[in-house]
This record gives sequence, C-alpha cells and structure tokens, in this order.
Amino acid sequence: MTALLNRGDIDFAVFDWLELHSRSDRETVEAFLDLSEKVAEESFLSHYKLADVDEPGIESGEVRICAAVKDALAQYAELGLFGAGFPERLGGIGLSQLACTASSAYFSAANIATSGYVMLTVANARLLAAFGTDAHVEAFARPQIEGRWFGTMCLSEPQAGSSLADIRTCAEFDEEDDLGKRYRLFGNKMWISGGDQDASENIVHLVLAKVRADDGSIPDDTRGLSLFVVPKLLPDGATNDIAVAGLNHKLGYRGTSNCALNFGEDRGAIGWIVGSPGDGLRQMFQMMNEARIAVGLGAAALGYRAYLLSLDYAKERKQGRAPGSRGGAPVAIVEHADVKRMLLTQKAYVEGAMALCLYCAHLVDLEDSEGDHQALLGLLTPIAKTWPSEYALAANDLAIQIHGGYGYTREYHVEQLWRDNRLNAIHEGTTGIQASDLVGRKILRDDAGLAALKRRILATLEAAETCPEHAEFKDALEQALRKALAAADYLRSQGLDRAIENAAPCLRGFGHVVVAWLMLDQLVCAGRLADKTRQGQQRYAGKLAAYRQFYVHDLPKIGIWLSTDSYARSDYGAIDIDVL
Amino acid sequence: MTALLNRGDIDFAVFDWLELHSRSDRETVEAFLDLSEKVAEESFLSHYKLADVDEPGIESGEVRICAAVKDALAQYAELGLFGAGFPERLGGIGLSQLACTASSAYFSAANIATSGYVMLTVANARLLAAFGTDAHVEAFARPQIEGRWFGTMCLSEPQAGSSLADIRTCAEFDEEDDLGKRYRLFGNKMWISGGDQDASENIVHLVLAKVRADDGSIPDDTRGLSLFVVPKLLPDGATNDIAVAGLNHKLGYRGTSNCALNFGEDRGAIGWIVGSPGDGLRQMFQMMNEARIAVGLGAAALGYRAYLLSLDYAKERKQGRAPGSRGGAPVAIVEHADVKRMLLTQKAYVEGAMALCLYCAHLVDLEDSEGDHQALLGLLTPIAKTWPSEYALAANDLAIQIHGGYGYTREYHVEQLWRDNRLNAIHEGTTGIQASDLVGRKILRDDAGLAALKRRILATLEAAETCPEHAEFKDALEQALRKALAAADYLRSQGLDRAIENAAPCLRGFGHVVVAWLMLDQLVCAGRLADKTRQGQQRYAGKLAAYRQFYVHDLPKIGIWLSTDSYARSDYGAIDIDVL
Repeated sequence: MTALLNRGDIDFAVFDWLELHSRSDRETVEAFLDLSEKVAEESFLSHYKLADVDEPGIESGEVRICAAVKDALAQYAELGLFGAGFPERLGGIGLSQLACTASSAYFSAANIATSGYVMLTVANARLLAAFGTDAHVEAFARPQIEGRWFGTMCLSEPQAGSSLADIRTCAEFDEEDDLGKRYRLFGNKMWISGGDQDASENIVHLVLAKVRADDGSIPDDTRGLSLFVVPKLLPDGATNDIAVAGLNHKLGYRGTSNCALNFGEDRGAIGWIVGSPGDGLRQMFQMMNEARIAVGLGAAALGYRAYLLSLDYAKERKQGRAPGSRGGAPVAIVEHADVKRMLLTQKAYVEGAMALCLYCAHLVDLEDSEGDHQALLGLLTPIAKTWPSEYALAANDLAIQIHGGYGYTREYHVEQLWRDNRLNAIHEGTTGIQASDLVGRKILRDDAGLAALKRRILATLEAAETCPEHAEFKDALEQALRKALAAADYLRSQGLDRAIENAAPCLRGFGHVVVAWLMLDQLVCAGRLADKTRQGQQRYAGKLAAYRQFYVHDLPKIGIWLSTDSYARSDYGAIDIDVL
Repeated sequence: MTALLNRGDIDFAVFDWLELHSRSDRETVEAFLDLSEKVAEESFLSHYKLADVDEPGIESGEVRICAAVKDALAQYAELGLFGAGFPERLGGIGLSQLACTASSAYFSAANIATSGYVMLTVANARLLAAFGTDAHVEAFARPQIEGRWFGTMCLSEPQAGSSLADIRTCAEFDEEDDLGKRYRLFGNKMWISGGDQDASENIVHLVLAKVRADDGSIPDDTRGLSLFVVPKLLPDGATNDIAVAGLNHKLGYRGTSNCALNFGEDRGAIGWIVGSPGDGLRQMFQMMNEARIAVGLGAAALGYRAYLLSLDYAKERKQGRAPGSRGGAPVAIVEHADVKRMLLTQKAYVEGAMALCLYCAHLVDLEDSEGDHQALLGLLTPIAKTWPSEYALAANDLAIQIHGGYGYTREYHVEQLWRDNRLNAIHEGTTGIQASDLVGRKILRDDAGLAALKRRILATLEAAETCPEHAEFKDALEQALRKALAAADYLRSQGLDRAIENAAPCLRGFGHVVVAWLMLDQLVCAGRLADKTRQGQQRYAGKLAAYRQFYVHDLPKIGIWLSTDSYARSDYGAIDIDVL
C-alpha cells in the first residue's frame, strides 16, 4: 500500500530541520506519530470512498452521518487523541503544536472530511481554554478534549459570508447563572461544518452575534460582534432552540456535514457570552487563525498523498519506450522526462506546503518574549492558508494527469483528493480575503512581521554560503527577497484602496518567496546530514532536484506577481463592469 | 437565464474577424446558430445535472443510458444537425467547418457529455467519407450523417494507452464481399466513448488493429496498424462478436458511456478494412486531429459558460463595501477589484480559447493550394487541444472561486463544468503527448508550419501599427515571437531526445504566444468596428481590458516556458528515480 505521507520526510522536518527533539522527548513523539499513522490508515483511510457516496442526510430534523465516520471518530476519542495538544491539567497529553500538526497531517491525508470534525473540535476547545471562564472550560471544553462532544464555529450568514460586519444574528440578555451571562440568540447561520451530526453526545457551537441594545438596535459594524457558546443540548439535558434548516451537497469533503442552522425559531437559543460584548471578533480570530493553518495543512496533506500515489503508479505503469530507444519492451512511465517533471513539480509543491505548515506550528511552540514569532506567524497565516490550497491542489491535478484515463475514474483516489482539496481555497476565508489580510493588515499596518521574515531569510542565506551547491538557490532567493520588499514598499506608498487591487498577485508572490526560503533552509539542513546515511543522501538529492525544478520553473513567476510595474498598470477601478 | 455563450462575441469572431460572410450566406449561418442555441438550451442544457447522476449502466450485457440524453440526440438527428457539415451529395447541409464549429460550441457549452456522441459520430463519418469506398460510405457513413447510427474510435488497449505501437488487437483475413475485404478481429479495447449505448440503431466502430501475417505473427510497430470498420449489428441484422467488458465510472463527462470492449470472444468480430493494410494510423490521424480540435473546443465552451455564470453571479451577489467606502449598503461583488480581476482573467482565457478553435476551423475551410493552411493547422492542432484544456479549465476554477461556498455545492453548475472539463487534458492524447507532437513532429521535422505562423504574426503586427492603443500589445507580441522562434531553434539544435525533455514548457509557451497573437488580431478588427455601434464600442473596450490583463499578468510566463537557459538546466534523464 502507498504510504499516506513520506514518514522519513516528516521525521526530517520535525526532528532534524525544526529540531523538536531539543525541546521534547523524541521517542514519545515518534510513538505518537507511529500511532497516528496506523490509526489514520486503518480507521480513516478505510472509509475514504465510502463516506464520499454515503453522504450526510436529515432524518426527523437531525443529521445522520456515515457509520464508518462515527466509528473512526470514536476510536480517535478512545485513544485520547483529541487531547493530544492540551495540557494535562485540562485532561490532555501536553504534546507540542508541531507534533500535533504532524499527526493531523496523517489524518488529513487519510480522510480530510472525517478529520474536519476533529480540527473544529480541537480549535473550539482551545478558544474556550484561552478566553472562557473556568466554568466554561469545565462545561464545554473538557468534553471536547475528551472527544465526547464536538465543536463548530458559526460565523457566516446568508447575507454575510466574508463580510462579518453584516452579521444580523442578535443576542438578548436573559440572566446570569452558574455559567455566566446567559443570552437568547436569534438568527440564521450557514456553511456550518459539523453543524449537526450524530457522532458526538453533544455539539458546542461558538456563535458570533451582536448584543441587542436597550433601544432594540444592533450595531452595524464588526465592533459589535460578541462570542457565545451555544450547546445543542443544554446542561439540564433539554434540547436548545437550534434547527437544522438544510444540508449542503458538495463537490467534495462530503463526509463532513455542512448545515444551515436557525438559532431561535422559538424562544431563542440559549448561549453564554465568552468574554465581554464586543470581544467576539478578536477572540474568534484565534480560532480562525488556527483553522486557517489547519486548512493549509489539510491541503498540503491531500496533495502529498496524491503525489505518493502518482509516484507509485508511475513506477508500476508500463507504457512507451525509454528515451533514445526505438524498440524493446515498454518501460515504467516514471522514466519519461515529462512524467519525471510532473513528479518533481509535485514533490516541490507538497514538501513546500507541508514545510510551511509545520514551520507555522513550530512558531506557535517557541518561547516568544518579544512577540517576534507571533508577528511572523501573523504574516505567514494567510500564506499558509493559501499557498497549499493552490499549489498542493496543483499537485492533485498533476496526480490525475499522471494516472491518465485511470485518474479520471472513481476507481482511483486521485480524483476525490482533487475534489476534496478544491474547498480549501474557499472555506475559512477565500483567497481574496487572505490576500486582503496579508496586504491590508499585515504589510500595510504591521512592520514587525515583514522585519521578522527578512531577518530569517537573511539568516538562511548566510547559512547557505558555505555550500557551492546552494549558490544558485542563494542568488535567486536574495533577488526574490529584494523583489518582495520592493513590492511591499510600493504597496505601502499606494494606500489601502489601491494596494488591495493588487493584493492577490502580492499574496502569490509572497507565497513563492516564503516557500523558496523554506526550501533552501531545508536544503542547508539536509545537506549537512547527507553524508551520514544512505537515506540522508537520497533525501538530499531528491530535495535538490525537486527544489531546483521549483527555483528554475516556478519561482521566476514572482517577476510578474511582485512587479510594481504591473501593479501600476492594473487599475481595476477604472474598468466599467458593462464591458465584461 | 444566463446565456450559454456570448452570441455577440461569437458573431464577431465568425463574421467580422474571420469574415465568414465573404464565403457563405450570412443569413443562413445566423439562422443555423439561432437554431443551435435554442436546441442546446432547451434539449441539452435541460438534462445537464440529471445525466451527471443518472449514469450509464449495464443491463443484460448492454449499456443503457439516461433517457434525456437519448431524447436530445434524437431531436438533434431529426433536425438534420448530424449532417450540417457534410456535402449535400452525402445527405448533408453543406455548411462550412467554421459555422459547424460555432454551432458545436453551443452544444458543448450546454452539455459536453451528450455532445460527445455527436462529435464522435461526425468525425467517424468524415473519416469514412475521406478514405472509405462508395460502399463503405453508403453502408456506414450515411446512417451516421442521418444521425440514426452513432460512431466510435477504438484505439487504446489495456497495455497500450498512448503507445499505439503496442496495440495487440489483430485481424485475420476472412473473405471479400460487397463491402470489400472482410476480416475477423480479436482483441480488447478500452476507454471507448460511446462504445455501447441504447440511443442509436447501430454503432459503427473504427478499430485500429494489426493484420496477422501468414506465419501467425503481428508487427510490433505502428507501421502494421490497419483500420477496420466494425459495426455492432452486421448488415444482415446479426449481432457482431463484440462484448461490453465493463463501464468506467468517471469524475465527470458522465453522460457519455465509456466502455471496455472485447472484440472476438467467440469467432471473431467481423470488420472491413478501410484502405490497405498499414494505412491505419495515417487515416486515423484525420479523425484524431479532428477530435483533438473538438476537445479543445469543448474545453473552451465549458470555460466560457462558467465565465458567464460567474459574471452574472458577481453582478447579483451583494457582499462587502465599495472600495474607498467604509460604510453604506453592501455592493455587488463584481465591484471588488479581486473579483473584477478574476472575471477579466476568465474572459481572456475563454475568448482566447474560443478564438483559437474557431481559427482552426477557419483554416479547414480556406482554399489551400500551397498546403500553407494545412501546415499551420498541423502546428496549431496540439495547441488547440491543450491550451483550452488548461486555461479554459482555469476559468472553470475561477468560476468556483467567484461563487464562493455556493460554487462548491452541487446546486450550482460551476462545479460540474470544472469536473467535466478536467477530462479534456487527458482524452485524445494527454498534454504530454500533444507536447511531443508539437516538438517532435511539428517543430523539429516541419519548417512549413512555423514559417506560416511567423508570416501571420508579422501580418498582425503590421496591421496593429496604425493604432497607438495597440502599441503595448505590438511590442510584447514582437518579443514573444522572437522568443518562440529562438526556443524552436534551440530545441532543433538539441536533437529529439533532449528536445522532448522540454516539450511541455515549449507547448505552454507556444500556446501563450499563439493566443496572444489571436488576441491582438481580434483587437485590430474590433478596434476598426468600435465606432460603428455602442455594442461595438463595448466589445472593443472589454477585449482591450481583458487582453491587457493577459498581456500584463500571463504572457510574461513565456519568459520561463520559452527560456533556453531553463531548457539547458533541465536534464531529467540525469535524475535517479529513487530520489523522488
């Protein structure tokens, strides 16, 4: 069977490159990854195709999901994996974010839709652990850390997808009880992943809503947003006033139920405020940022698995003749230059995407007294969300191409991996939203992130100086950094409205520069280890070949995406929509 | 309802740009396109989603397809549309290839899977009309021109997908009868679109096979390939020895049955040779080339429809605020720069793809005493197959993105258009095969095609000289042409094996240069007509904006794809497969 991920490469990234062993017991983490890989293969991968056809349905007003999804999640809970990243005082195992992220990569590669429930539950519990009262943590976070209850995040509304200022769900103060200030919520939420399901004993919704003022009005901007914890079943066992208004039937990710929910069709859904009125968006951003990196990780994992499937296929499938030979027996298609080129491209994309997400997890783990890692993480978050969603998806596309006609059939997994991955550029903020975040919030308003990135790239360039094999990479990355900084300066000089017009190419350009940096940084590390083992030699040679493919054929695209000349020539405001 | 294609743009291309009215009665062609648009909407589009879920199945060894597909094809036949492009002496209407292609674009946009049966039937009949005897034409082509029988092309075998030399299906001479030399065929064919169905009275298979020599051997290269016409039902009404071995369940294109067929499980499938033994590949290339351009056209049409759907969606969907405004009511998302950029990109891709395919049809129609058009068509065929399959597909991807979460649901059509279009880079020769064809056959072996392309681009550059608005396009296209010619020279100097290593980027680069040329050529024409009508003004302004988007943000990629430096640095043969 084809491996879900290249374990040697994951171990290299986690232990050698990001040096987790210096902060954590290597044997424990290795055993944790062994277990993750085993359970992912045996319980998550096993129903990958089944959950794609056995879609969630509604019975008597409640959502029923595929039995195999429920079984897998029950096993995941039983093993205590929901609590892997939580401190022991909250019932968790206390593993680092990096270890947990590497584990998640296995489950996402095996079955992104089933993993979706886990991702939302963990991020929900973490938000409550950060901002909730002790009573909230006991009542709502602990059962999620134990994997008995699952969580959701409820932001979008029919009239307010990406535009959170337009949220109309309102909360009316009810009274104070053991769990704090209790409200009644009224409003319609949509695109709620895991919004209803029959896999967990209860569902914990984290709902963005606006507190209604005494005069009955609700604020019309994001400052009025508040966060409420709204369980499906109330502490007394009664059912809360939340109705499933419908299910979305999707292109992929089908195992994850996706619901429209009506809060408060009757007397109002009961919820307790987290923090104070107006804190909602700031608090929710913790969950959103975690979810954004998780989305990037899921995208990376989907592309990674597709790469390994196409590599194995290309080694087995015989077709055509070796270059230069006009006769003889057919050879494996991996021998053809065109197939090799596609495989190298995939390898660069998926290893680059995975490295980016693991690096972000690593930043979460590091001590951060000066806020430097935090600033860099802020800059990298929209990139870690988007770059894998576009380039690991491109690896999925290439996987279909390498499989030829077989790849287009549902007998193979590569078509589903492609469909599943297509969601990742949309949910948790589309690429356009991420681009606005990068340019509007991070580049225009915050110098610290860019300064932190520059410092680290310069450090990598310095480390690369000793090895002649890295010279070509070093020169290209130096130029790329200059281009990125010049583009950032230019956009800053333009002001927000003009800068936003070019946010999408800027995001793509920064994505390529960041990934190219992480590639060279890996090469430096892999090069040092290359002499020690045969595996180390092969790893280094493989990374050299794949990253060179990226540097020669992909990185030069930043000449377009970070071109201030092309920014100057793009004035979309001047284009009349009637001519489209 | 959203239009299938922009009729104004199609009319502009057909009548103004390619000047069909100078060779053909404009009113007749307009009425034909009116009819095509109407039938495509009423009978083909109407079952687009239905045929995606009501997939072909096998009952008692025969394939049954969705009833709505059969009804649509029956109506298409009743209107005489199968015969649109055939001369009257063969029972056709005698319309030009350009008119027929514009008509096909409507049916492909409405329902690519249902249109697939038509495309194969017409190409099959045209091959027989070109190479068959009068008896073959009467017996096998006429019923297809009437739309009573449908056709297939049977090339691939399990061990021979793209590698036709490895075909093992063999033919044993039986005897001569009214239809010529009769053979019995034995072998397994796969990926046969329309290989079995219950929509037509009979099915005409055109089968590539090798004639068994007297000593029992069969040749092991393509020179031994011969072409046979093998009907499902024999002239005497008996069922031929052809068994359906299985059906493929696909990612998209689901309305078209796709079969594995076993010829000669019993006494041998009866077939008549077309031409002489060894003529097979040359003859089949006529059908393959026609099918390749048809595949490109289908891809263009799928992207085109998705563009129009997202344009309408973007005009209706309100979300966020206008640039520069911090409050007020939400605006239609078409007002956002990021959405406008995506729409302009789509418009450039789909109009570029459509123009390319219509231009190829135009070349078929032109008198060609010196073989110049034929040489250019040869060069353009792999490009017309591939460029729309990649870039109109990119327009489909953007259509999902513009629709946001809605685009990911099966309630909308854009996800299916994307799935359907993904096949087009695979069937009728993958992109890798097209790249080998362009570089190996057309650039390395044939000067005439490249010379013809150069002459025409120079003519367009000259025509663009009079208009200052075209200066930026002209300069960029001049440089692009130089780059393409230099890349071709370089590849020629490298010899076949090294040249093939860089065939894929070369194909992409040539694709962009050719499409950029056709864009400027359209701008010259649209610019001349812009003053005459308000519509003409808008068309010109729209093309200017979209094609500028392409010239500024896309065309510079040829700096990578046509870079002789990057060709020199790509030595895939030197890369050990074990490091992948």
